[in-house]
Amino acid sequence: MHDSMKVVALAGGVGGAKLAHGLAQLLPPENLTVIVNTGDDFEHFGLRISPDLDTVCYTLAGLANPDTGWGRSGESWNAIENVSRLGGPGWFHLGDQDLGTHLERTRRLQMGQSLSEVTRAFCQAWNVQAAVLPMSDDQVMTWVETEEMGWLQFQSYFVEHHCEPRVRRFAMKGLEQAHPAPGLIEAIEKADVVVFCPSNPWVSINPILDLPQVRDHVARKAKQSSGATVAVSPIIGGQAVKGPLAKLYQELGIPPTATAVAEQYEGLLSGFVLDQVDENQAERVAALGMQPLVTDTLMKSAGDRRRLAEEVMAFCERILGEQSLL
Amino acid sequence: MHDSMKVVALAGGVGGAKLAHGLAQLLPPENLTVIVNTGDDFEHFGLRISPDLDTVCYTLAGLANPDTGWGRSGESWNAIENVSRLGGPGWFHLGDQDLGTHLERTRRLQMGQSLSEVTRAFCQAWNVQAAVLPMSDDQVMTWVETEEMGWLQFQSYFVEHHCEPRVRRFAMKGLEQAHPAPGLIEAIEKADVVVFCPSNPWVSINPILDLPQVRDHVARKAKQSSGATVAVSPIIGGQAVKGPLAKLYQELGIPPTATAVAEQYEGLLSGFVLDQVDENQAERVAALGMQPLVTDTLMKSAGDRRRLAEEVMAFCERILGEQSLL
Repeated sequence: MHDSMKVVALAGGVGGAKLAHGLAQLLPPENLTVIVNTGDDFEHFGLRISPDLDTVCYTLAGLANPDTGWGRSGESWNAIENVSRLGGPGWFHLGDQDLGTHLERTRRLQMGQSLSEVTRAFCQAWNVQAAVLPMSDDQVMTWVETEEMGWLQFQSYFVEHHCEPRVRRFAMKGLEQAHPAPGLIEAIEKADVVVFCPSNPWVSINPILDLPQVRDHVARKAKQSSGATVAVSPIIGGQAVKGPLAKLYQELGIPPTATAVAEQYEGLLSGFVLDQVDENQAERVAALGMQPLVTDTLMKSAGDRRRLAEEVMAFCERILGEQSLL
Repeated sequence: MHDSMKVVALAGGVGGAKLAHGLAQLLPPENLTVIVNTGDDFEHFGLRISPDLDTVCYTLAGLANPDTGWGRSGESWNAIENVSRLGGPGWFHLGDQDLGTHLERTRRLQMGQSLSEVTRAFCQAWNVQAAVLPMSDDQVMTWVETEEMGWLQFQSYFVEHHCEPRVRRFAMKGLEQAHPAPGLIEAIEKADVVVFCPSNPWVSINPILDLPQVRDHVARKAKQSSGATVAVSPIIGGQAVKGPLAKLYQELGIPPTATAVAEQYEGLLSGFVLDQVDENQAERVAALGMQPLVTDTLMKSAGDRRRLAEEVMAFCERILGEQSLL
């Protein structure tokens, strides 16, 4: 019964938030820890903005805009419209309610609270019961080297320039000096299951894995006989459900396939979840040493999130059951 | 004709903004410079907030909330409500449109623009044609020593604690090292008329006068035969129209009267404008070496602002005319 299994989910933005929400609907809150990428955090107008963390928390809290997946439902845009009127940069979509989050986060960080402490307090206020951990309390910044514009901060590439420049490579500034957030390594060690949510491997999952010790701990769990580590493919039929992932693969000279995602995670996973349209790739995934699960991975409705989470958990139970027979 | 007179107005918040607006309706924009107190500027949530500057600019731009005098008309409060829900301080009334101003001001200051430059750009965007100068580009902070709570930052005293603590004295941190904003001294030197708007002497007008050189330049103009320096009393019938001024005088052991205001400005003024309810104080004002003008000084409507501005300008013309006869 997955009720008693301890689960860690690694998540980026919208896709990650959706599966985390499915898991949160299914599991007792004390058994779910969501570790969220903070590599695309940045400072804007002097405020500290954590896009993925906010997307995950708003989604788990039921506050997210159901149309966009990011931002708040019932949002107003009066502050950023006034910024634009004053000639300031309006490209980052700062809603008024959302601004409240950034204001209070910035205030608390300036008072000396850590990002983990701030996140815990916000989750309490929003009645989010699962544990949500930023990947690190230290600032890590994703930079993107592009053909046309040189190095760009991730949010500038992603939002200001609509992912249009061609990408050469990524760099994570501050990653080597960063520590995993308090409790992160322990959560992975204690977990029966680690789920890589359907997020962008380059800019959402890798920054978490690249923190000191994290990749090693996940790899060890993949090889253990007492842990299941599975990823859900963010590529379906050669397309990313959201974001620039398919375009990124192409620019980096890699065909955008579920298999390409699995290859990025080689050595880290005991199972891999592909969409039914990619069924013909199941064998290639199996050849990478991962059990494949083929199912409908597209999460259009809240019901889809829960169904996919159930299938992922049942898949992990099977993997754990087989391990116990060895 | 006051059309050709060069006018400098010293202003704090709501009362100052109203008379400045009256003068702006009357004078060619190139002949009006409004110098605004920035001693009650502060940092909140990491943003730089300039309450008096914003009140003056919003009022001159026709963007001010007509009910409160401060803040924006048609304002929404979604950001600060979300801050409160997260347990943060909601005491400073940060409207969403108003936040846009603070965000863009903070961004520009962090880029290295001066507060004067930012203010000039904002006035252009808001179509404010008179010159509006912050008193200084350097940070000066008004602190208030109270009986009950010790030293408080001015906005904490004024807004968070509703001016309730009893005041012992004021301190302006950074004032001695601060420079008057570029063009401020020149504007006073070239002015035919300097008007002290009906603002709080302690926390709005004195911080401007206490900047290096400013008091001397105003005093010299008061003694010249080619300049009129006049103040409009912020005290009417022993009461302040707005704010804690009457209470302040009492706590400092001074009866709250128009005469008390005139005494604070002794040596700086050639004329002083009292409300008709204070007519009996005209003689005492005259004894301080200032010509008194008794009129209706309460500005309830936009028409009142213009009428009072006209009376003040006519008064200054009389003073200048008499000087030229000497």
